[in-house]
Amino acid sequence: MTYKELFLLICRKRSFLCIGLDSDESKIPAHLLQAEDPVFEFNRCIIDATIDLAVAYKPNLAFYESRGIKGLKSLERTMNHIQSLNKNVFTIADAKRGDIGNTSAQYARGVFDSASSGFDFDAITVAPYMGGDSVKPFLTFEGKWVILLALTSNKGADDFQVAETGQEKLFELVLKRSKDWGTHENMMYVVGATRADMLAGIRSIVPDHFLLVPGVGAQGGSLSEVARYGMNSHCGLLVNASRSILFASSGKDFAKKARNEAQSIQKEMSALLKIHNIRH
Amino acid sequence: MTYKELFLLICRKRSFLCIGLDSDESKIPAHLLQAEDPVFEFNRCIIDATIDLAVAYKPNLAFYESRGIKGLKSLERTMNHIQSLNKNVFTIADAKRGDIGNTSAQYARGVFDSASSGFDFDAITVAPYMGGDSVKPFLTFEGKWVILLALTSNKGADDFQVAETGQEKLFELVLKRSKDWGTHENMMYVVGATRADMLAGIRSIVPDHFLLVPGVGAQGGSLSEVARYGMNSHCGLLVNASRSILFASSGKDFAKKARNEAQSIQKEMSALLKIHNIRH
Repeated sequence: MTYKELFLLICRKRSFLCIGLDSDESKIPAHLLQAEDPVFEFNRCIIDATIDLAVAYKPNLAFYESRGIKGLKSLERTMNHIQSLNKNVFTIADAKRGDIGNTSAQYARGVFDSASSGFDFDAITVAPYMGGDSVKPFLTFEGKWVILLALTSNKGADDFQVAETGQEKLFELVLKRSKDWGTHENMMYVVGATRADMLAGIRSIVPDHFLLVPGVGAQGGSLSEVARYGMNSHCGLLVNASRSILFASSGKDFAKKARNEAQSIQKEMSALLKIHNIRH
Repeated sequence: MTYKELFLLICRKRSFLCIGLDSDESKIPAHLLQAEDPVFEFNRCIIDATIDLAVAYKPNLAFYESRGIKGLKSLERTMNHIQSLNKNVFTIADAKRGDIGNTSAQYARGVFDSASSGFDFDAITVAPYMGGDSVKPFLTFEGKWVILLALTSNKGADDFQVAETGQEKLFELVLKRSKDWGTHENMMYVVGATRADMLAGIRSIVPDHFLLVPGVGAQGGSLSEVARYGMNSHCGLLVNASRSILFASSGKDFAKKARNEAQSIQKEMSALLKIHNIRH
């Protein structure tokens, strides 16, 4: 998906919501456990109930890998289902990969090259620690995106990401060095919503890039703060919620309750897009 | 596997060789492509030809994920084969994972919890960027190891790992902060052989930890330099070679040629263990 297509999708759905499919088998409603593939069944219901409200889905690969080959089958069915709906939606493999060049090229095939792996995601999250040659192989796929970790929403972000490196913090150095590896049309950055106060500074380094913002919902970040400091003229934000939507109810009404939760976020997003005068 | 068991294995095999199973399907000998699972067949032959010479095998997960579910089946068969041989060998999932705590816990199940994922590796490589709470969930599994990236062997290591952070470089900060997250009995560090001159400084920070050292062979690092600066009283080194062994020949003699290559490294290692007076 191109930058322009993503922007049009945001304008059309009046939403910049990304739903994280952190589909923990131990947390899905009990009545689904009878299904042949309970995790896929859960995802299918969540997607069908929210696809008009979300611009992106982000399966968290850990929750599939934890169940080995069975888990990967759930993921494959989920991605096939999204494609079968034939509605535009951006898909992100939340994988935090990154290795030496020839290895990153293989990871890229694992999520982007459907002829090889069966997967055809639009984007992958990548960790920056190994530097430029570990990131660039992901950028060689036409229409595909790297979403590089900059400043994450967890407590451990304080360990290294905010370390002072000369004139700037490490995550600022990551932004400055990496922004020339691609363009704002094939790179985004992960910036946690729990750090909304730092978004203004981040926007001064990467004014045009999309930011993928986790941490709204279960992790406590504020959507209006994120929009105030992070929104640009093309929205420039994908805000992720996972657990607050997926596990809004553990009963048979889980999909309806997930929709209610997503709708409440989408309404707030629609209002924020209006306030910031974002339209096509 | 415990620290003591790993040390005994090194003493018994007179080797600290780790063979990286970066089993690229496009590089394996043509005659194997007729097999039902060519990558597994390739790995099986390599393992059978080298298991008396290697103390560790390190499948590089990217090379399996790139082929989707088929690739994961090759990996599962490979790991089952290693277990069936009933010879002690240390196994490393080279995965470079790391995410917020509840997600890292799922990644850990993916490689350590065989009841859930089918995989029962001894160790996993982890990226440090997201900090302590992204690493600690991997350390809660008895007898399992985290191998944390410190200073890698690729050019991109210069982008962030050697950035000055106050009194030290970032990789030194990573070593200092992380060494108390676990102990030398459940944590190791990745240090590239192409940086052997930096091993002495690293040893002053982590004198007792094992170091996993890639970069010997195809990447050009020197084994004797690595031993000179990096060996401790319990060896403290696992030196990895991948392509130079796996693809020593592309003909029907590939396993024999792989053995020759591994044997030549093992002989050098045996001599280095003797020089450094490492024995049980």
